Amino acid sequence: MKDQFYSYILALQNRITQAIEDFDGKAKFEQDIWKRKEGGGGQSRIIENGAVIEKGGVNISAVYGALPKSMQTYFKVGEVDFFACGLSLVIHPKNPMAPTVHANYRYFEMYDDKGIILDQWFGGGQDLTPYYLFEEDVVHFHQQCKKACDKYHPDFYKEFKDNCDKYFYNKHRNESRGVGGLFFDYLKADKKLNIQDRFDFVTDVGNVFLDSYMPILNKRKDQFYNKINRNWQEIRRGRYVEFNLIHDKGTLFGLKTNGRIESILMSLPPYVQWHYNHEPAKGSEEFKLITILKNPREWI
Amino acid sequence: MKDQFYSYILALQNRITQAIEDFDGKAKFEQDIWKRKEGGGGQSRIIENGAVIEKGGVNISAVYGALPKSMQTYFKVGEVDFFACGLSLVIHPKNPMAPTVHANYRYFEMYDDKGIILDQWFGGGQDLTPYYLFEEDVVHFHQQCKKACDKYHPDFYKEFKDNCDKYFYNKHRNESRGVGGLFFDYLKADKKLNIQDRFDFVTDVGNVFLDSYMPILNKRKDQFYNKINRNWQEIRRGRYVEFNLIHDKGTLFGLKTNGRIESILMSLPPYVQWHYNHEPAKGSEEFKLITILKNPREWI
Repeated sequence: MKDQFYSYILALQNRITQAIEDFDGKAKFEQDIWKRKEGGGGQSRIIENGAVIEKGGVNISAVYGALPKSMQTYFKVGEVDFFACGLSLVIHPKNPMAPTVHANYRYFEMYDDKGIILDQWFGGGQDLTPYYLFEEDVVHFHQQCKKACDKYHPDFYKEFKDNCDKYFYNKHRNESRGVGGLFFDYLKADKKLNIQDRFDFVTDVGNVFLDSYMPILNKRKDQFYNKINRNWQEIRRGRYVEFNLIHDKGTLFGLKTNGRIESILMSLPPYVQWHYNHEPAKGSEEFKLITILKNPREWI
Repeated sequence: MKDQFYSYILALQNRITQAIEDFDGKAKFEQDIWKRKEGGGGQSRIIENGAVIEKGGVNISAVYGALPKSMQTYFKVGEVDFFACGLSLVIHPKNPMAPTVHANYRYFEMYDDKGIILDQWFGGGQDLTPYYLFEEDVVHFHQQCKKACDKYHPDFYKEFKDNCDKYFYNKHRNESRGVGGLFFDYLKADKKLNIQDRFDFVTDVGNVFLDSYMPILNKRKDQFYNKINRNWQEIRRGRYVEFNLIHDKGTLFGLKTNGRIESILMSLPPYVQWHYNHEPAKGSEEFKLITILKNPREWI
Protein backbone atom coordinates (compact mmCIF):
# COMPACT_ATOMS: atom_id res chain seq x y z
CA MET A 1 0.00 0.00 0.00
CA LYS A 2 2.77 2.44 0.80
CA ASP A 3 4.33 1.98 -2.63
CA GLN A 4 0.96 2.24 -4.29
CA PHE A 5 0.16 5.49 -2.51
CA TYR A 6 3.63 6.94 -3.06
CA SER A 7 3.33 6.28 -6.79
CA TYR A 8 0.00 8.03 -6.72
CA ILE A 9 1.26 11.23 -5.05
CA LEU A 10 4.29 11.28 -7.32
CA ALA A 11 2.03 11.23 -10.36
CA LEU A 12 -0.38 13.72 -8.76
CA GLN A 13 2.45 16.14 -8.09
CA ASN A 14 3.38 16.00 -11.78
CA ARG A 15 -0.21 16.43 -12.87
CA ILE A 16 -0.95 19.39 -10.60
CA THR A 17 2.32 21.27 -11.13
CA GLN A 18 2.01 20.84 -14.90
CA ALA A 19 -1.55 22.16 -14.87
CA ILE A 20 -0.61 25.15 -12.72
CA GLU A 21 2.42 26.04 -14.82
CA ASP A 22 0.40 25.84 -18.02
CA PHE A 23 -2.28 27.98 -16.44
CA ASP A 24 0.06 30.60 -15.02
CA GLY A 25 2.00 30.94 -18.25
CA LYS A 26 4.82 32.95 -16.66
CA ALA A 27 6.46 31.29 -13.66
CA LYS A 28 7.84 27.76 -13.42
CA PHE A 29 8.07 25.46 -10.43
CA GLU A 30 11.50 25.17 -8.88
CA GLN A 31 12.27 21.67 -7.60
CA ASP A 32 14.28 20.82 -4.49
CA ILE A 33 15.03 17.29 -3.44
CA TRP A 34 15.91 16.86 0.22
CA LYS A 35 16.96 13.98 2.45
CA ARG A 36 15.96 13.44 6.05
CA LYS A 37 18.86 12.35 8.21
CA GLU A 38 16.75 9.81 10.12
CA GLY A 39 15.26 8.29 6.95
CA GLY A 40 13.43 9.39 3.83
CA GLY A 41 13.07 12.84 2.34
CA GLY A 42 11.03 14.72 -0.17
CA GLN A 43 10.62 16.52 -3.43
CA SER A 44 9.42 20.12 -3.09
CA ARG A 45 8.15 22.19 -5.98
CA ILE A 46 7.70 25.89 -5.40
CA ILE A 47 6.40 28.57 -7.74
CA GLU A 48 6.78 32.30 -7.08
CA ASN A 49 6.00 35.61 -8.77
CA GLY A 50 3.83 34.15 -11.49
CA ALA A 51 1.28 35.99 -13.59
CA VAL A 52 -1.51 34.46 -11.49
CA ILE A 53 0.21 32.62 -8.64
CA GLU A 54 2.09 34.83 -6.21
CA LYS A 55 3.47 31.89 -4.24
CA GLY A 56 2.67 28.23 -4.15
CA GLY A 57 4.11 24.88 -3.30
CA VAL A 58 3.22 21.32 -4.27
CA ASN A 59 5.40 19.09 -2.14
CA ILE A 60 5.65 15.39 -1.61
CA SER A 61 7.59 13.59 1.05
CA ALA A 62 8.10 10.11 2.43
CA VAL A 63 9.72 9.85 5.83
CA TYR A 64 10.38 6.80 7.97
CA GLY A 65 12.43 5.34 10.79
CA ALA A 66 11.97 5.38 14.55
CA LEU A 67 8.92 7.40 15.57
CA PRO A 68 10.23 10.54 17.33
CA LYS A 69 9.59 10.77 21.10
CA SER A 70 7.15 13.67 20.82
CA MET A 71 5.12 11.75 18.22
CA GLN A 72 5.07 8.65 20.47
CA THR A 73 3.40 10.78 23.14
CA TYR A 74 1.03 12.24 20.53
CA PHE A 75 -0.05 8.84 19.20
CA LYS A 76 0.12 7.22 22.65
CA VAL A 77 2.42 4.43 21.51
CA GLY A 78 5.83 3.19 22.61
CA GLU A 79 9.01 2.98 20.57
CA VAL A 80 7.87 1.93 17.12
CA ASP A 81 8.96 2.46 13.55
CA PHE A 82 6.80 4.45 11.19
CA PHE A 83 6.38 5.37 7.57
CA ALA A 84 4.53 8.49 6.43
CA CYS A 85 4.11 9.94 2.99
CA GLY A 86 1.95 12.61 1.51
CA LEU A 87 1.39 15.47 -0.86
CA SER A 88 0.84 18.96 0.54
CA LEU A 89 -0.06 21.96 -1.51
CA VAL A 90 -0.85 25.59 -0.89
CA ILE A 91 -1.55 28.14 -3.62
CA HIS A 92 -1.60 31.87 -2.86
CA PRO A 93 -2.87 33.74 -5.93
CA LYS A 94 -1.94 37.39 -6.46
CA ASN A 95 -5.46 38.65 -7.06
CA PRO A 96 -7.31 39.16 -3.75
CA MET A 97 -10.54 38.10 -5.44
CA ALA A 98 -9.08 34.61 -5.93
CA PRO A 99 -9.01 32.34 -2.88
CA THR A 100 -6.01 30.57 -1.40
CA VAL A 101 -6.31 26.80 -1.54
CA HIS A 102 -4.73 24.07 0.55
CA ALA A 103 -4.78 20.32 0.03
CA ASN A 104 -3.10 17.37 1.65
CA TYR A 105 -3.32 13.62 0.98
CA ARG A 106 -1.33 11.39 3.26
CA TYR A 107 -0.78 7.83 4.41
CA PHE A 108 0.72 6.55 7.65
CA GLU A 109 1.99 3.14 8.82
CA MET A 110 3.36 1.97 12.19
CA TYR A 111 5.23 -1.28 12.70
CA ASP A 112 5.98 -3.67 15.53
CA ASP A 113 9.56 -4.78 16.16
CA LYS A 114 9.23 -7.55 13.57
CA GLY A 115 8.25 -5.02 10.91
CA ILE A 116 4.62 -6.14 10.85
CA ILE A 117 2.11 -3.33 10.29
CA LEU A 118 0.56 -2.41 13.65
CA ASP A 119 -1.67 0.27 12.24
CA GLN A 120 -2.23 2.08 8.95
CA TRP A 121 -4.44 4.96 7.92
CA PHE A 122 -5.08 7.75 5.45
CA GLY A 123 -5.68 11.41 6.14
CA GLY A 124 -6.01 14.69 4.35
CA GLY A 125 -8.51 16.87 2.60
CA GLN A 126 -8.74 20.18 0.79
CA ASP A 127 -10.06 23.57 1.80
CA LEU A 128 -10.57 27.05 0.45
CA THR A 129 -9.62 30.40 2.02
CA PRO A 130 -11.19 33.36 0.20
CA TYR A 131 -10.47 37.02 0.91
CA TYR A 132 -13.71 38.09 -0.74
CA LEU A 133 -16.78 35.93 -0.69
CA PHE A 134 -18.22 34.71 -4.01
CA GLU A 135 -20.82 32.20 -2.97
CA GLU A 136 -20.87 30.48 -6.35
CA ASP A 137 -17.13 29.72 -5.98
CA VAL A 138 -17.61 28.18 -2.56
CA VAL A 139 -20.57 26.15 -3.77
CA HIS A 140 -18.57 24.89 -6.74
CA PHE A 141 -15.68 23.83 -4.52
CA HIS A 142 -17.96 22.01 -2.10
CA GLN A 143 -19.87 20.33 -4.92
CA GLN A 144 -16.65 18.84 -6.26
CA CYS A 145 -15.75 17.66 -2.76
CA LYS A 146 -19.19 16.11 -2.33
CA LYS A 147 -18.98 14.37 -5.69
CA ALA A 148 -15.82 12.55 -4.64
CA CYS A 149 -17.34 11.61 -1.28
CA ASP A 150 -20.73 10.42 -2.50
CA LYS A 151 -19.18 7.59 -4.52
CA TYR A 152 -18.09 5.96 -1.24
CA HIS A 153 -20.61 6.79 1.41
CA PRO A 154 -23.64 9.10 1.67
CA ASP A 155 -22.44 10.41 5.05
CA PHE A 156 -18.82 11.14 4.07
CA TYR A 157 -19.31 14.64 2.73
CA LYS A 158 -21.21 15.89 5.77
CA GLU A 159 -18.81 14.24 8.19
CA PHE A 160 -15.63 15.48 6.52
CA LYS A 161 -17.09 18.92 5.81
CA ASP A 162 -17.93 19.32 9.51
CA ASN A 163 -14.47 18.02 10.45
CA CYS A 164 -12.95 20.62 8.16
CA ASP A 165 -14.91 23.48 9.77
CA LYS A 166 -13.82 22.21 13.16
CA TYR A 167 -10.17 21.71 12.27
CA PHE A 168 -9.36 24.88 10.30
CA TYR A 169 -10.52 27.09 13.10
CA ASN A 170 -8.55 29.93 14.65
CA LYS A 171 -9.76 29.33 18.18
CA HIS A 172 -7.92 32.38 19.52
CA ARG A 173 -9.91 34.55 17.04
CA ASN A 174 -13.19 32.63 17.21
CA GLU A 175 -13.28 32.39 13.44
CA SER A 176 -12.67 29.84 10.71
CA ARG A 177 -9.55 30.07 8.59
CA GLY A 178 -11.67 29.83 5.47
CA VAL A 179 -14.86 28.36 4.04
CA GLY A 180 -13.79 24.77 4.47
CA GLY A 181 -14.04 21.76 2.22
CA LEU A 182 -13.02 18.31 3.45
CA PHE A 183 -10.83 17.13 6.31
CA PHE A 184 -10.37 13.51 7.37
CA ASP A 185 -7.87 11.57 9.43
CA TYR A 186 -7.34 8.03 10.76
CA LEU A 187 -9.23 6.50 7.83
CA LYS A 188 -8.55 2.85 8.58
CA ALA A 189 -9.83 -0.40 7.18
CA ASP A 190 -13.19 -1.26 8.72
CA LYS A 191 -16.15 -3.54 8.00
CA LYS A 192 -17.44 -1.44 5.11
CA LEU A 193 -14.25 -0.18 3.51
CA ASN A 194 -11.02 -2.10 3.35
CA ILE A 195 -7.67 -0.33 3.04
CA GLN A 196 -7.85 -0.48 -0.76
CA ASP A 197 -11.26 1.23 -0.67
CA ARG A 198 -9.76 3.90 1.56
CA PHE A 199 -7.00 4.37 -0.98
CA ASP A 200 -9.57 4.70 -3.74
CA PHE A 201 -11.48 7.30 -1.76
CA VAL A 202 -8.49 9.47 -0.86
CA THR A 203 -7.10 9.35 -4.38
CA ASP A 204 -10.51 10.24 -5.80
CA VAL A 205 -10.48 13.34 -3.61
CA GLY A 206 -7.00 14.12 -4.95
CA ASN A 207 -8.28 13.58 -8.46
CA VAL A 208 -10.97 16.25 -8.14
CA PHE A 209 -8.56 18.86 -6.80
CA LEU A 210 -7.87 20.54 -10.14
CA ASP A 211 -11.56 20.54 -11.07
CA SER A 212 -12.52 22.03 -7.74
CA TYR A 213 -10.02 24.88 -7.76
CA MET A 214 -8.87 25.82 -11.26
CA PRO A 215 -12.25 27.03 -12.56
CA ILE A 216 -12.44 29.41 -9.59
CA LEU A 217 -8.94 30.69 -10.20
CA ASN A 218 -9.76 31.14 -13.86
CA LYS A 219 -12.84 33.17 -13.05
CA ARG A 220 -11.11 35.47 -10.54
CA LYS A 221 -7.55 35.88 -11.77
CA ASP A 222 -8.24 39.00 -13.87
CA GLN A 223 -10.98 40.53 -11.77
CA PHE A 224 -10.44 44.20 -10.88
CA TYR A 225 -9.01 45.02 -7.48
CA ASN A 226 -7.57 48.05 -5.75
CA LYS A 227 -5.08 48.78 -2.97
CA ILE A 228 -7.77 48.39 -0.29
CA ASN A 229 -8.57 44.88 -1.53
CA ARG A 230 -4.89 43.99 -1.60
CA ASN A 231 -4.32 45.26 1.96
CA TRP A 232 -7.29 43.24 3.15
CA GLN A 233 -5.88 40.13 1.48
CA GLU A 234 -2.53 40.66 3.23
CA ILE A 235 -4.22 41.19 6.59
CA ARG A 236 -6.27 38.01 6.16
CA ARG A 237 -3.12 36.17 5.14
CA GLY A 238 -1.92 37.06 8.64
CA ARG A 239 -4.71 34.87 10.00
CA TYR A 240 -3.49 32.11 7.71
CA VAL A 241 -0.03 32.41 9.24
CA GLU A 242 -1.51 32.38 12.74
CA PHE A 243 -3.39 29.16 12.05
CA ASN A 244 -0.43 27.39 10.48
CA LEU A 245 2.05 28.34 13.21
CA ILE A 246 -0.20 28.07 16.27
CA HIS A 247 -2.70 25.33 15.47
CA ASP A 248 -1.80 23.26 12.43
CA LYS A 249 -0.86 19.67 13.24
CA GLY A 250 0.73 19.16 9.83
CA THR A 251 3.18 22.00 10.45
CA LEU A 252 3.94 20.72 13.94
CA PHE A 253 4.39 17.17 12.61
CA GLY A 254 6.90 18.49 10.09
CA LEU A 255 8.81 20.43 12.73
CA LYS A 256 8.80 17.53 15.20
CA THR A 257 9.92 14.91 12.72
CA ASN A 258 12.81 17.11 11.57
CA GLY A 259 11.34 17.79 8.15
CA ARG A 260 12.82 20.38 5.83
CA ILE A 261 11.90 23.82 7.18
CA GLU A 262 11.63 25.64 3.85
CA SER A 263 9.35 22.89 2.53
CA ILE A 264 7.12 22.98 5.60
CA LEU A 265 6.90 26.75 5.71
CA MET A 266 6.28 27.20 1.99
CA SER A 267 2.64 27.44 3.11
CA LEU A 268 3.28 30.95 4.48
CA PRO A 269 2.08 33.73 2.17
CA PRO A 270 4.66 36.07 0.56
CA TYR A 271 3.36 39.46 1.78
CA VAL A 272 1.49 39.72 5.06
CA GLN A 273 0.26 42.52 7.29
CA TRP A 274 -0.72 42.85 10.92
CA HIS A 275 -2.39 46.03 12.11
CA TYR A 276 -3.75 46.64 15.54
CA ASN A 277 -7.49 46.19 15.98
CA HIS A 278 -8.26 46.13 12.28
CA GLU A 279 -11.98 45.69 11.74
CA PRO A 280 -13.87 46.06 8.47
CA ALA A 281 -16.77 48.52 8.30
CA LYS A 282 -20.20 47.01 8.89
CA GLY A 283 -21.92 46.06 5.66
CA SER A 284 -18.68 46.08 3.62
CA GLU A 285 -17.58 43.15 1.45
CA GLU A 286 -14.82 42.51 3.97
CA PHE A 287 -17.37 42.41 6.78
CA LYS A 288 -19.45 39.90 4.83
CA LEU A 289 -16.52 37.50 4.73
CA ILE A 290 -15.91 37.77 8.48
CA THR A 291 -19.57 37.09 9.18
CA ILE A 292 -19.37 33.81 7.27
CA LEU A 293 -16.10 32.85 8.97
CA LYS A 294 -17.67 33.37 12.37
CA ASN A 295 -20.70 31.27 11.43
CA PRO A 296 -19.72 28.36 9.18
CA ARG A 297 -22.69 27.27 7.10
CA GLU A 298 -23.84 24.62 4.64
CA TRP A 299 -22.98 25.28 1.02
CA ILE A 300 -24.95 22.53 -0.69
CA MET B 1 4.12 42.97 46.74
CA LYS B 2 1.54 42.64 44.00
CA ASP B 3 0.27 46.17 44.60
CA GLN B 4 3.80 47.52 44.79
CA PHE B 5 4.73 45.89 41.47
CA TYR B 6 1.50 46.88 39.76
CA SER B 7 2.09 50.52 40.74
CA TYR B 8 5.56 50.24 39.31
CA ILE B 9 4.46 48.91 35.89
CA LEU B 10 1.67 51.48 35.74
CA ALA B 11 4.21 54.29 36.25
CA LEU B 12 6.68 52.63 33.87
CA GLN B 13 4.05 52.40 31.15
CA ASN B 14 3.47 56.16 31.48
CA ARG B 15 7.17 56.91 31.46
CA ILE B 16 7.98 54.78 28.42
CA THR B 17 4.98 55.78 26.30
CA GLN B 18 5.61 59.46 27.05
CA ALA B 19 9.27 59.16 26.06
CA ILE B 20 8.43 57.33 22.84
CA GLU B 21 5.70 59.78 21.85
CA ASP B 22 7.99 62.74 22.47
CA PHE B 23 10.72 61.05 20.47
CA ASP B 24 8.52 60.07 17.54
CA GLY B 25 6.94 63.50 17.28
CA LYS B 26 4.20 62.34 14.91
CA ALA B 27 2.13 59.41 16.16
CA LYS B 28 0.39 59.07 19.52
CA PHE B 29 -0.36 55.95 21.54
CA GLU B 30 -3.93 54.75 21.40
CA GLN B 31 -5.15 53.30 24.70
CA ASP B 32 -7.53 50.36 25.10
CA ILE B 33 -8.72 49.14 28.46
CA TRP B 34 -9.97 45.58 28.52
CA LYS B 35 -11.52 43.28 31.10
CA ARG B 36 -10.92 39.56 31.43
CA LYS B 37 -14.12 37.62 32.06
CA GLU B 38 -12.48 35.34 34.64
CA GLY B 39 -10.82 38.21 36.55
CA GLY B 40 -8.63 41.21 35.87
CA GLY B 41 -7.77 42.90 32.61
CA GLY B 42 -5.33 45.32 31.12
CA GLN B 43 -4.43 48.63 29.62
CA SER B 44 -2.91 48.43 26.15
CA ARG B 45 -1.17 51.31 24.43
CA ILE B 46 -0.42 50.95 20.76
CA ILE B 47 1.35 53.32 18.40
CA GLU B 48 1.29 52.97 14.61
CA ASN B 49 2.54 54.81 11.53
CA GLY B 50 4.80 57.19 13.40
CA ALA B 51 7.72 59.14 11.96
CA VAL B 52 10.13 56.66 13.57
CA ILE B 53 7.98 53.89 15.02
CA GLU B 54 6.11 51.81 12.47
CA LYS B 55 4.26 49.80 15.09
CA GLY B 56 4.70 49.37 18.80
CA GLY B 57 2.86 48.45 21.93
CA VAL B 58 3.47 49.06 25.62
CA ASN B 59 0.89 47.01 27.47
CA ILE B 60 0.21 46.26 31.09
CA SER B 61 -2.15 43.66 32.46
CA ALA B 62 -3.12 42.11 35.77
CA VAL B 63 -5.08 38.88 35.60
CA TYR B 64 -6.23 36.60 38.39
CA GLY B 65 -8.68 33.89 39.43
CA ALA B 66 -8.57 30.13 39.12
CA LEU B 67 -5.44 28.94 37.32
CA PRO B 68 -6.58 27.54 33.94
CA LYS B 69 -6.27 23.75 33.47
CA SER B 70 -3.54 24.00 30.85
CA MET B 71 -1.48 26.23 33.15
CA GLN B 72 -1.95 23.77 36.04
CA THR B 73 -0.33 21.13 33.87
CA TYR B 74 2.39 23.57 32.85
CA PHE B 75 3.25 24.54 36.44
CA LYS B 76 2.62 21.00 37.76
CA VAL B 77 0.15 22.19 40.40
CA GLY B 78 -3.46 21.34 41.23
CA GLU B 79 -6.45 23.67 41.29
CA VAL B 80 -5.08 26.91 42.72
CA ASP B 81 -5.79 30.60 42.38
CA PHE B 82 -3.24 32.88 40.79
CA PHE B 83 -2.38 36.49 40.20
CA ALA B 84 -0.13 37.67 37.39
CA CYS B 85 0.75 41.15 36.28
CA GLY B 86 3.32 42.59 33.93
CA LEU B 87 4.36 45.08 31.34
CA SER B 88 5.14 43.88 27.81
CA LEU B 89 6.51 46.04 25.08
CA VAL B 90 7.60 45.59 21.50
CA ILE B 91 8.81 48.41 19.25
CA HIS B 92 9.15 47.92 15.50
CA PRO B 93 10.88 50.96 13.98
CA LYS B 94 10.36 51.83 10.32
CA ASN B 95 14.04 52.16 9.45
CA PRO B 96 15.63 48.72 8.86
CA MET B 97 18.88 50.00 10.35
CA ALA B 98 17.13 50.41 13.71
CA PRO B 99 16.55 47.22 15.71
CA THR B 100 13.27 45.93 17.08
CA VAL B 101 13.20 45.78 20.87
CA HIS B 102 11.16 43.67 23.26
CA ALA B 103 10.89 43.93 27.03
CA ASN B 104 8.77 42.27 29.67
CA TYR B 105 8.68 42.65 33.46
CA ARG B 106 6.26 40.43 35.30
CA TYR B 107 5.26 39.08 38.67
CA PHE B 108 3.33 35.93 39.55
CA GLU B 109 1.63 34.64 42.72
CA MET B 110 -0.16 31.36 43.46
CA TYR B 111 -2.40 30.80 46.49
CA ASP B 112 -3.64 27.91 48.56
CA ASP B 113 -7.35 27.57 49.28
CA LYS B 114 -7.08 29.91 52.27
CA GLY B 115 -5.59 32.63 50.08
CA ILE B 116 -2.11 32.23 51.54
CA ILE B 117 0.71 32.74 49.02
CA LEU B 118 2.03 29.31 47.98
CA ASP B 119 4.64 30.69 45.64
CA GLN B 120 5.70 34.02 44.17
CA TRP B 121 8.26 35.03 41.61
CA PHE B 122 9.41 37.62 39.09
CA GLY B 123 10.31 37.13 35.47
CA GLY B 124 11.14 39.11 32.39
CA GLY B 125 14.00 40.77 30.60
CA GLN B 126 14.73 42.76 27.47
CA ASP B 127 16.28 41.87 24.16
CA LEU B 128 17.26 43.40 20.85
CA THR B 129 16.50 42.17 17.32
CA PRO B 130 18.52 44.01 14.67
CA TYR B 131 18.10 43.65 10.92
CA TYR B 132 21.59 45.02 10.28
CA LEU B 133 24.40 44.53 12.70
CA PHE B 134 26.01 47.59 14.30
CA GLU B 135 28.23 46.11 16.96
CA GLU B 136 28.43 49.35 18.93
CA ASP B 137 24.62 49.29 19.31
CA VAL B 138 24.62 45.75 20.61
CA VAL B 139 27.46 46.50 23.00
CA HIS B 140 25.63 49.58 24.30
CA PHE B 141 22.45 47.58 24.90
CA HIS B 142 24.31 44.83 26.74
CA GLN B 143 26.29 47.33 28.81
CA GLN B 144 23.08 48.86 30.10
CA CYS B 145 21.76 45.40 30.90
CA LYS B 146 24.95 44.53 32.72
CA LYS B 147 24.89 47.75 34.71
CA ALA B 148 21.48 46.90 36.14
CA CYS B 149 22.58 43.34 36.93
CA ASP B 150 25.94 44.13 38.54
CA LYS B 151 24.31 46.08 41.37
CA TYR B 152 22.76 42.83 42.60
CA HIS B 153 25.11 40.00 41.82
CA PRO B 154 28.31 39.61 39.78
CA ASP B 155 26.92 36.47 38.10
CA PHE B 156 23.51 37.85 37.12
CA TYR B 157 24.48 39.39 33.80
CA LYS B 158 26.20 36.27 32.52
CA GLU B 159 23.43 33.99 33.73
CA PHE B 160 20.56 36.05 32.33
CA LYS B 161 22.41 36.86 29.11
CA ASP B 162 22.93 33.13 28.50
CA ASN B 163 19.29 32.46 29.39
CA CYS B 164 18.27 35.05 26.84
CA ASP B 165 20.33 33.47 24.07
CA LYS B 166 18.81 30.13 24.97
CA TYR B 167 15.22 31.34 25.18
CA PHE B 168 14.92 33.60 22.12
CA TYR B 169 16.04 30.85 19.81
CA ASN B 170 14.23 29.70 16.69
CA LYS B 171 15.03 26.03 17.12
CA HIS B 172 13.39 25.08 13.81
CA ARG B 173 15.81 27.49 12.04
CA ASN B 174 18.86 26.88 14.24
CA GLU B 175 19.26 30.60 14.77
CA SER B 176 18.66 33.19 17.48
CA ARG B 177 15.79 35.62 17.12
CA GLY B 178 18.16 38.50 17.80
CA VAL B 179 21.30 39.49 19.66
CA GLY B 180 19.85 38.92 23.11
CA GLY B 181 20.02 40.92 26.30
CA LEU B 182 18.54 39.55 29.52
CA PHE B 183 15.98 36.86 30.25
CA PHE B 184 15.06 35.59 33.72
CA ASP B 185 12.19 33.65 35.25
CA TYR B 186 11.19 32.13 38.59
CA LEU B 187 13.17 34.76 40.52
CA LYS B 188 12.06 33.78 44.01
CA ALA B 189 13.15 34.83 47.48
CA ASP B 190 16.26 32.89 48.52
CA LYS B 191 19.05 33.13 51.10
CA LYS B 192 20.80 36.01 49.36
CA LEU B 193 17.90 38.02 47.95
CA ASN B 194 14.51 38.37 49.58
CA ILE B 195 11.42 39.16 47.54
CA GLN B 196 11.93 42.91 48.01
CA ASP B 197 15.47 42.60 46.62
CA ARG B 198 14.04 40.73 43.66
CA PHE B 199 11.57 43.57 43.14
CA ASP B 200 14.41 46.07 43.26
CA PHE B 201 16.39 44.10 40.70
CA VAL B 202 13.56 43.65 38.20
CA THR B 203 12.49 47.29 38.46
CA ASP B 204 16.10 48.42 38.00
CA VAL B 205 16.17 46.47 34.76
CA GLY B 206 12.93 48.20 33.79
CA ASN B 207 14.47 51.53 34.71
CA VAL B 208 17.37 51.12 32.28
CA PHE B 209 15.11 50.22 29.36
CA LEU B 210 14.91 53.71 27.89
CA ASP B 211 18.65 54.27 28.30
CA SER B 212 19.45 50.97 26.66
CA TYR B 213 17.25 51.45 23.60
CA MET B 214 16.53 55.09 22.83
CA PRO B 215 20.13 56.13 22.05
CA ILE B 216 20.27 53.33 19.46
CA LEU B 217 16.98 54.38 17.92
CA ASN B 218 18.19 57.96 17.83
CA LYS B 219 21.36 56.99 16.03
CA ARG B 220 19.64 54.82 13.40
CA LYS B 221 16.29 56.44 12.75
CA ASP B 222 17.48 58.65 9.89
CA GLN B 223 20.14 56.40 8.46
CA PHE B 224 19.90 55.83 4.70
CA TYR B 225 18.22 52.65 3.49
CA ASN B 226 16.94 51.30 0.21
CA LYS B 227 14.30 48.83 -0.96
CA ILE B 228 16.68 45.89 -0.54
CA ASN B 229 17.24 46.80 3.13
CA ARG B 230 13.51 47.18 3.67
CA ASN B 231 12.75 43.79 2.08
CA TRP B 232 15.38 42.16 4.25
CA GLN B 233 13.81 43.75 7.34
CA GLU B 234 10.40 42.38 6.37
CA ILE B 235 11.81 38.91 5.74
CA ARG B 236 13.56 38.92 9.12
CA ARG B 237 10.36 40.11 10.73
CA GLY B 238 8.93 36.82 9.47
CA ARG B 239 11.35 35.05 11.80
CA TYR B 240 10.08 37.25 14.61
CA VAL B 241 6.54 36.08 13.86
CA GLU B 242 7.68 32.47 13.76
CA PHE B 243 9.28 32.75 17.18
CA ASN B 244 6.31 34.47 18.78
CA LEU B 245 3.70 32.09 17.40
CA ILE B 246 5.62 28.80 17.63
CA HIS B 247 7.88 29.15 20.65
CA ASP B 248 7.07 32.13 22.87
CA LYS B 249 5.72 31.16 26.27
CA GLY B 250 4.40 34.67 26.90
CA THR B 251 2.21 34.49 23.81
CA LEU B 252 1.00 31.01 24.72
CA PHE B 253 0.32 32.12 28.31
CA GLY B 254 -1.79 34.96 26.97
CA LEU B 255 -3.74 32.68 24.65
CA LYS B 256 -4.24 30.01 27.32
CA THR B 257 -5.40 32.42 30.03
CA ASN B 258 -7.93 33.99 27.67
CA GLY B 259 -6.07 37.29 27.40
CA ARG B 260 -7.08 39.93 24.88
CA ILE B 261 -5.95 38.74 21.44
CA GLU B 262 -5.19 42.14 19.93
CA SER B 263 -3.09 43.03 22.96
CA ILE B 264 -1.15 39.76 22.85
CA LEU B 265 -0.57 39.89 19.11
CA MET B 266 0.44 43.56 19.02
CA SER B 267 3.97 42.10 19.03
CA LEU B 268 3.55 41.04 15.38
CA PRO B 269 5.22 43.41 12.91
CA PRO B 270 3.06 45.43 10.48
CA TYR B 271 4.58 44.31 7.15
CA VAL B 272 6.15 40.90 6.80
CA GLN B 273 7.44 38.75 3.95
CA TRP B 274 8.10 35.07 3.43
CA HIS B 275 9.97 33.93 0.35
CA TYR B 276 11.05 30.43 -0.41
CA ASN B 277 14.67 29.60 0.36
CA HIS B 278 15.77 33.19 0.77
CA GLU B 279 19.46 33.33 1.58
CA PRO B 280 21.67 36.41 1.65
CA ALA B 281 24.80 36.47 -0.50
CA LYS B 282 28.00 35.44 1.26
CA GLY B 283 29.90 38.41 2.62
CA SER B 284 26.90 40.75 2.46
CA GLU B 285 25.71 42.81 5.44
CA GLU B 286 22.68 40.54 5.62
CA PHE B 287 24.92 37.50 5.74
CA LYS B 288 26.92 39.05 8.57
CA LEU B 289 23.79 39.29 10.69
CA ILE B 290 22.86 35.64 10.07
CA THR B 291 26.36 34.52 11.02
CA ILE B 292 26.00 36.21 14.42
CA LEU B 293 22.52 34.78 14.93
CA LYS B 294 23.82 31.28 14.29
CA ASN B 295 26.71 31.77 16.72
CA PRO B 296 25.64 33.90 19.71
CA ARG B 297 28.68 35.60 21.22
CA GLU B 298 29.79 37.73 24.15
CA TRP B 299 29.33 41.47 23.71
CA ILE B 300 31.16 42.75 26.75
